[in-house]
Amino acid sequence: MPRGEKERPMPAEVVQPTLSAGVRPEAEAVVADLRAALGDRISTAAAVRAQHGRDESYHAVAAPDAVAFPRSTEEVAAVVRACAAHRVPIVPFGTGTALEGGVAALGGGVCIDLSGLDRIVRVSAEDLDCTVEAGVTRKRLNEHLRDTGLFFPVDPGADASLGGMAATRASGTNAVRYGTMRENVLGLTAVLADGRVVRTGTRARKSAAGYDLTRLLVGSEGTLGVITEVTLRLHGIPEAVSAAVCAFPGIRAAVDTVILTIQSGIPVARIELLDEVQMAACNRFSKLDYPEAPTLFFEFHGSAAAVVEQAEQVGTIAAGYGGTAFQWATRPEERSRLWQARHDAYYAGIALRPDGRGMTTDVCVPISRLADCIDDTRADVAETGLLAPMVGHVGDGNFHLVIVVDPNDADELARAEALHERLVLRALAMDGTCTGEHGVGYGKVRFLEAEHGEGVAVMRAIKQALDPLGLMNPGKVLRA
Amino acid sequence: MPRGEKERPMPAEVVQPTLSAGVRPEAEAVVADLRAALGDRISTAAAVRAQHGRDESYHAVAAPDAVAFPRSTEEVAAVVRACAAHRVPIVPFGTGTALEGGVAALGGGVCIDLSGLDRIVRVSAEDLDCTVEAGVTRKRLNEHLRDTGLFFPVDPGADASLGGMAATRASGTNAVRYGTMRENVLGLTAVLADGRVVRTGTRARKSAAGYDLTRLLVGSEGTLGVITEVTLRLHGIPEAVSAAVCAFPGIRAAVDTVILTIQSGIPVARIELLDEVQMAACNRFSKLDYPEAPTLFFEFHGSAAAVVEQAEQVGTIAAGYGGTAFQWATRPEERSRLWQARHDAYYAGIALRPDGRGMTTDVCVPISRLADCIDDTRADVAETGLLAPMVGHVGDGNFHLVIVVDPNDADELARAEALHERLVLRALAMDGTCTGEHGVGYGKVRFLEAEHGEGVAVMRAIKQALDPLGLMNPGKVLRA
Repeated sequence: MPRGEKERPMPAEVVQPTLSAGVRPEAEAVVADLRAALGDRISTAAAVRAQHGRDESYHAVAAPDAVAFPRSTEEVAAVVRACAAHRVPIVPFGTGTALEGGVAALGGGVCIDLSGLDRIVRVSAEDLDCTVEAGVTRKRLNEHLRDTGLFFPVDPGADASLGGMAATRASGTNAVRYGTMRENVLGLTAVLADGRVVRTGTRARKSAAGYDLTRLLVGSEGTLGVITEVTLRLHGIPEAVSAAVCAFPGIRAAVDTVILTIQSGIPVARIELLDEVQMAACNRFSKLDYPEAPTLFFEFHGSAAAVVEQAEQVGTIAAGYGGTAFQWATRPEERSRLWQARHDAYYAGIALRPDGRGMTTDVCVPISRLADCIDDTRADVAETGLLAPMVGHVGDGNFHLVIVVDPNDADELARAEALHERLVLRALAMDGTCTGEHGVGYGKVRFLEAEHGEGVAVMRAIKQALDPLGLMNPGKVLRA
Repeated sequence: MPRGEKERPMPAEVVQPTLSAGVRPEAEAVVADLRAALGDRISTAAAVRAQHGRDESYHAVAAPDAVAFPRSTEEVAAVVRACAAHRVPIVPFGTGTALEGGVAALGGGVCIDLSGLDRIVRVSAEDLDCTVEAGVTRKRLNEHLRDTGLFFPVDPGADASLGGMAATRASGTNAVRYGTMRENVLGLTAVLADGRVVRTGTRARKSAAGYDLTRLLVGSEGTLGVITEVTLRLHGIPEAVSAAVCAFPGIRAAVDTVILTIQSGIPVARIELLDEVQMAACNRFSKLDYPEAPTLFFEFHGSAAAVVEQAEQVGTIAAGYGGTAFQWATRPEERSRLWQARHDAYYAGIALRPDGRGMTTDVCVPISRLADCIDDTRADVAETGLLAPMVGHVGDGNFHLVIVVDPNDADELARAEALHERLVLRALAMDGTCTGEHGVGYGKVRFLEAEHGEGVAVMRAIKQALDPLGLMNPGKVLRA
């Protein structure tokens, strides 16, 4: 697929969010209205506002004018109607654990904190599905499911809310087997820009009944509506789990192991790659003694016999590519020990520098291009002199270079941004995407045209049709 | 999820398509323009027009004014631009094998026959994906793939074009394991209403980069754009296949067997249910001697050991529910013999009456409600005295009642329509859908509001934004 658009240079401007000192006059009227409706569940306290204007990224904070704490879809609709009446922007907030500034209130407005929508509405073990309100977190759902023999597999690392995960089309380590939020949301309830409530999808496993509004809202990051409830697909807890870890002489050997594993149809649940910089960081952070070499971490789900067989098959493939120190285990404490470096990876990377912050990248490419993309990127990193460990969900072709920056060093930030931009262009030239799972927020708006070309105009037409006043999380996904 | 909308009575009118005798004056100018562009690849011959205004359903034929035979995305764009300039409707045509009148030119216009877009653009065995033009049929793709060890699994029965299958969100017998077109289209190229060409998605396995335009166009039935190319996910041909067949004392016992099979995590590739009316029809049509009882047909994919184990596990489950005459086989000719009744089902049903036509229904419900839905429906059929064999993709909760009607008997047609409507309302009340896989066409437009409520207004807003002149397959999915 030739994409002339990819060659186009990207605009250099970086969004400069405003951080207002208090409630701006234009928001005062809506706050008064909301106080009448929500009582003390609307806050303009500086600390509450600041906390709701930031996520876990390096992006600049932009606090909203006020934060509303509704407890039902109807209350969310009331907040949205009030904001629409006063022409005030709306920014939904789940747990604030995203990475692209999606909760920053770039133009002020009212943040809707959805943590009060916390009911698990129903679980149907027979149908392998459940319905939860948007504020329920994935860990809480899985605790609730424990006795049913079922679990919800999508695992982005953070204990994010399921509404937020739907809004950002989250995935994580075991998407290679269980899919992302795209595959695991069967339907949802959302409040539209004018306060109407729409329910999409049904509980049927498949449907050909009209436009796929569920998939349109999943990944729309609050720019088309506020998701208040999701119906999710559940999966049987595997009878057994095994884990394995293996070091390689180089990245290419590790990636070739991944490709052959996938092509052999081994139904691996997770395959993670950490490069030698990341492994050294993990050793230092957690006082471990892994070989400081590119390393693959595997997890297998299935029957007791199947998980042993899968681990052995992968061990054979890895050995064929020069893998060494292959270890595998099935007992939980042994599995945890094998995977410890992976669990610590992000914080170990950041800890490489005192006061460092992580500029996290998120490209995803076809797996046949993964080794090239990683090799070229590492050569690029070496030239810049920047510190950038790498961890990847390589079964999907998705990897994160975490550029550890001093947020106060403008020159270094600029070099890191330039490295990030070259990485994105490299991935797009390989028919990949600028974001495999973190979403666009306002951090990746500038890459969207390079990736989608004319598609951005289509997205803009849809945005205009569903949010003509431009009040729903403005400046995210698309330019305001 | 309470859905008050479901109680709303549906409008009783049935669309009465017009069948113009020749090219209407308003279409003459566009035909002249297209003749200049396409030469003899634009036809106004009566036989060509009539053939393109019908599919395989009982719905009334509505011929277009002319049929264009482009050979590239650019030529499709040229046809669309000419139609837009002359304000003439556009109806895409794949193989004409759909079942809801999707190709009927309700307001005349130009039919775009996509069979000339027949190139297999590329196959990447490493990435388990391929790109094909819209007119390539699924069987042709699978023949092309034979030596790669890969196959494309979505199988709606007919040898449909892959563009048409994407446009209608097709699925079929093995969706329970491999998913539908929703899960198996990674990206696509489409011509929009104003002739712009948009490419959606990338070849990355996952992406969080903006609105999911791929999933929006999949299932949009030509009402938002003409799909000209699709990038598809491929799967490894299983090392071994086994098939099984088993008769049951009643529908409920068969459905309980299905539920326990799915819950046990047995990765069944196909599970089909035929009721006793359908089995009797198959015996008569193909001179077979199956027990005339509700019967399940299974297919298992995996390693040689796994497919034996799966068949045995299912045999045990079936026996627990009173299943009898359980047979299974792995050799291809034996498997074909076991499955013959299933392969013949549709034509065997129609053949129950001389000159009968099939009014095919297509509801899909959560599997926990499937036995209730089927039981209630069969009681309803018995009361009407209509002839209506049943076949279901029961692993997904999807089943087809084929009401065998005399198309010239208006009273019988009305009773069949009423039965169909009661079936749809029953499925919606069980949180199911009016169409699991056939799409809306113009045959199910009247059910869409009952299913989606406010969602239809959202669909209409999107349609208006992307096709403001209402020229893209008007009257399909949404009212014109």
